[in-house]
Parts: sequence; structure tokens; C-alpha cells
Amino acid sequence: MDKTGRYQFLAEPFHCDFSGHLLVGHLGNHLLNAADYHSRERGFGMDYLGPRHKAWVLSRLAIELEETPRAYDEMTIETWVEGAMRYFTTRDFAILAADGHAYGHGRSVWALIDTESRQPTDILAIRDGSVADYIDAERSCPAGRVSRVRPAADHCRERRLEMQYSDVDVNGHVNSVKYIEHALDLLPLDWYRQHPLRRLEVAYVAEAHAGDTLTLMLDQVSETEYHFFIQKDKEKDKSCVDVAHGKFVFG
Amino acid sequence: MDKTGRYQFLAEPFHCDFSGHLLVGHLGNHLLNAADYHSRERGFGMDYLGPRHKAWVLSRLAIELEETPRAYDEMTIETWVEGAMRYFTTRDFAILAADGHAYGHGRSVWALIDTESRQPTDILAIRDGSVADYIDAERSCPAGRVSRVRPAADHCRERRLEMQYSDVDVNGHVNSVKYIEHALDLLPLDWYRQHPLRRLEVAYVAEAHAGDTLTLMLDQVSETEYHFFIQKDKEKDKSCVDVAHGKFVFG
Repeated sequence: MDKTGRYQFLAEPFHCDFSGHLLVGHLGNHLLNAADYHSRERGFGMDYLGPRHKAWVLSRLAIELEETPRAYDEMTIETWVEGAMRYFTTRDFAILAADGHAYGHGRSVWALIDTESRQPTDILAIRDGSVADYIDAERSCPAGRVSRVRPAADHCRERRLEMQYSDVDVNGHVNSVKYIEHALDLLPLDWYRQHPLRRLEVAYVAEAHAGDTLTLMLDQVSETEYHFFIQKDKEKDKSCVDVAHGKFVFG
Repeated sequence: MDKTGRYQFLAEPFHCDFSGHLLVGHLGNHLLNAADYHSRERGFGMDYLGPRHKAWVLSRLAIELEETPRAYDEMTIETWVEGAMRYFTTRDFAILAADGHAYGHGRSVWALIDTESRQPTDILAIRDGSVADYIDAERSCPAGRVSRVRPAADHCRERRLEMQYSDVDVNGHVNSVKYIEHALDLLPLDWYRQHPLRRLEVAYVAEAHAGDTLTLMLDQVSETEYHFFIQKDKEKDKSCVDVAHGKFVFG
């Protein structure tokens, strides 16, 4: 089987924002779905791992867009494994238009956890290290890595939001892309009239569940760059726990 | 061209809830997308109407589900026009599994508005009444009509929520399905462990936009039936305006 998986998606009109461009949250879910199809077809998907009490957990995600697909655009998402170590794999993405040119690229880092202990487990132990058979070290991905961000003393926007039924996905915790959607929602719709999203980065630190209350914080670090920080309330001692943080770069 | 349009969709795993069933919001968007494809292909879609300052506006929607598609299920959504009058069309849906059996059905009522005056305009004036050529009065749809609901004196749940960038779709106002998602989120995730949604109804009264604050109210009318009411704040005089209301029936 080919190292690269190729999956067709359509920018469905009711998945598009007010400007007729695919909502980046929907694009992010397409990437997660493509990752799932690729790993299933190659024997290390959730269907194989679930009954063995293991699950892939997204640790980092970067998406770079030169152009955002518009309503009715067909796209092919290519995905391949760039590298695998004991506790992390790097999976890359190319988001291609019907004529073959790239809308953009993505890069992600995944851990494999034991769903009972919630601890990382050895990726190279799956099917005697079969993940290694699919590593494509030749193909480079232009999307850069997720960089470190530090919160400012004052945030330009802050919002508290309780996580609900529709925030939770098939893994039982808040969907990775929902954090991105909620963070993008910290900026007013008018911002998006002038500023298309060109790059996003997110690092996932802890899981949140339905009923958790998140605090979403946004810092502006340049005219077109924002950093975001997401924490959840800890019931026990009224402290907060980091859940995710990342970066948006607009055009 | 056939009166019925048929469109393929997949219950993508990251569009599924914690129980592995397609989120009804995503199913609702599939219905809206199918309606859009059907009307475009027959010459009365948004692409034809937009430049003529006209748009379809969803007025009522009912979805009845005997079974909810599960992750990786392929489905075909069939849609056809049941009837057209001067100011309203009725469009029906069948949601079919790969083996042809029905997951469920839908029924919707649409108005055509002038996007400048926001007033209803004559549907039968489009292309000399060409909508009439596609009416399939023979085919019945088992999904019942949207019934009337009245708010109780006390609500069992109430939530205020500001509408954001990602709530707004290609029409420039809050996406029809987002109201349903936000209303479903009034019930805790634990409710959904025991109670699959079997029927939903929604009537749309007014449009909301990014920046509007909604009040979402839920009434329990029987063990498995809830009614919801959504209002938006009016800035001018601090009063409220009805935006949508409807009903959920669970199994």
C-alpha cells in the first residue's frame, strides 16, 4: 500500500463562512478524518487500537494556507507519516485543489496513549513496528513546526465558555478542532473581512470534557499575529489547568 | 432532469458524538447542502438567485430519525420539492443507508426573500415558474409537519450566548443548524447516553447575526419531549425578539 493516503473532500456551502470560504474548523476536521482513514487502511487505526485500549491523541497541529478553499471547491487531502519515534509520530498533510496546486499544508504530532492509564505507550510496539513501513522520510512538508508561545501580562480578549455535548467527539473529550474554533471566535467577524487566516498552530496539553468551563485568552503580538491560551477550571481547589495554546497569523 | 436529487455523504468519524453517532447538526447541514445542490442543478439555486438579489430562507425544518448513522456509514440524501406556492415551497428529504433502508426523513419549508428589502418575493416568478416543473406531488414523506409550541411559565434550563464568527454561514447570518446545536447543548451529555434524538422541529422567525446575544430556553413537556425557545436581545429598548423555537423528541 502506498505510503501516502489521498482523500477527496468538498467545501460544502453550509460549511463556509460569511465570505464563502471554508471554515478552517471544517478544514481541520477534514485533516483529522484523513489521518483516521490513512491509519485505518494501514492497520494502525482507531478500529484496531480501540479494542486494545489504545488511542491516538493529537499533540500538536500546524496548518498553513496560501489560499482557503471556496464553496463548492473539491479538494484532495494527502497525508503521510514523516517520522515515528517511541512516543510520537509526525504526520504531514497537503491540501490540494482540483488542478493540483496546493491550498496549503499541515503538520501534526501524535502520541499513542493507553486509554486506561492515560499514559503514553510505545508506538513501535504496534503490530511489531509496522508504522515504520509507512514512513516517508523523502517527502518534505513546507508547513513549519509549532513554536513556543508565552502569555502576555494582559490579554486583549478573554471569554469563559462551558463545554457542551456538541463540543465532544467520538473520543469522548472536547474535539481538537473545537478549541481552534472557540479561539478563532475571540476575534470579531469584522476582523475576518480584511484578514484571511494564513497559519495556525496549536499545542494540546490536557483534555477537557463536557461540563468543564474553559477560559479562552487572546494576546495580540503584532498587527496580524495573535496568541491564544486555553485553561480549564479545576473543581477541587479553584485553580486552573492549561488545556491548549497556540498562534494565529493572518494575512 | 429527475425531480429527485440524490447526494452521497459519509458520517465522518470526527463529525460523530461521544457515542459514535453522527451529530444531528452535521446531518442537518448535509440536508441544507443537498437542498442547495438540488436547486442549483435545476436552475433555481443561490448561484442564479444571488446576483438577482434573492435568497432562499429556511422557515421550518423537521427531521425524524428511526436510526442515527454511525461513524463511517455512507448515506444518500434524496431531496425533492413536494409543493410550491407563491411565498413558500415545501422540500422533503429521505436519509438512506447504503442498503437502501431509511435512517429517517425530513421536511422543510422555504421562503424566497428579496435580499435588499428582506421581504418575501414570488417564488413562481423565477424563470417563469420553472420550480413547478420539479414538483413531485406523488411522493409522500413520512416526516410530519412542524407543530406549534408555547413557552412554559418556568424554563428548566436557560443560557445566554453571544453569536460569533463561526456561528455565521455563507448567507451572512447565524447558520440555521447552529440554533439546533445550541439548543441541543442545553441538555447535559449524560442525557444523550440514554436518549437518542428521534425527532426535531424548528421554526425560524427572525435572523440573528454575529455579535447578537441569544437567550436559549428549554422546557420539559414529558419524559422524552422538550421544547426550546430562542430570543435575541434588541439593543434599542432592551426588549427581546423571537428568533426560533422548536421541539426535541427523544427515544
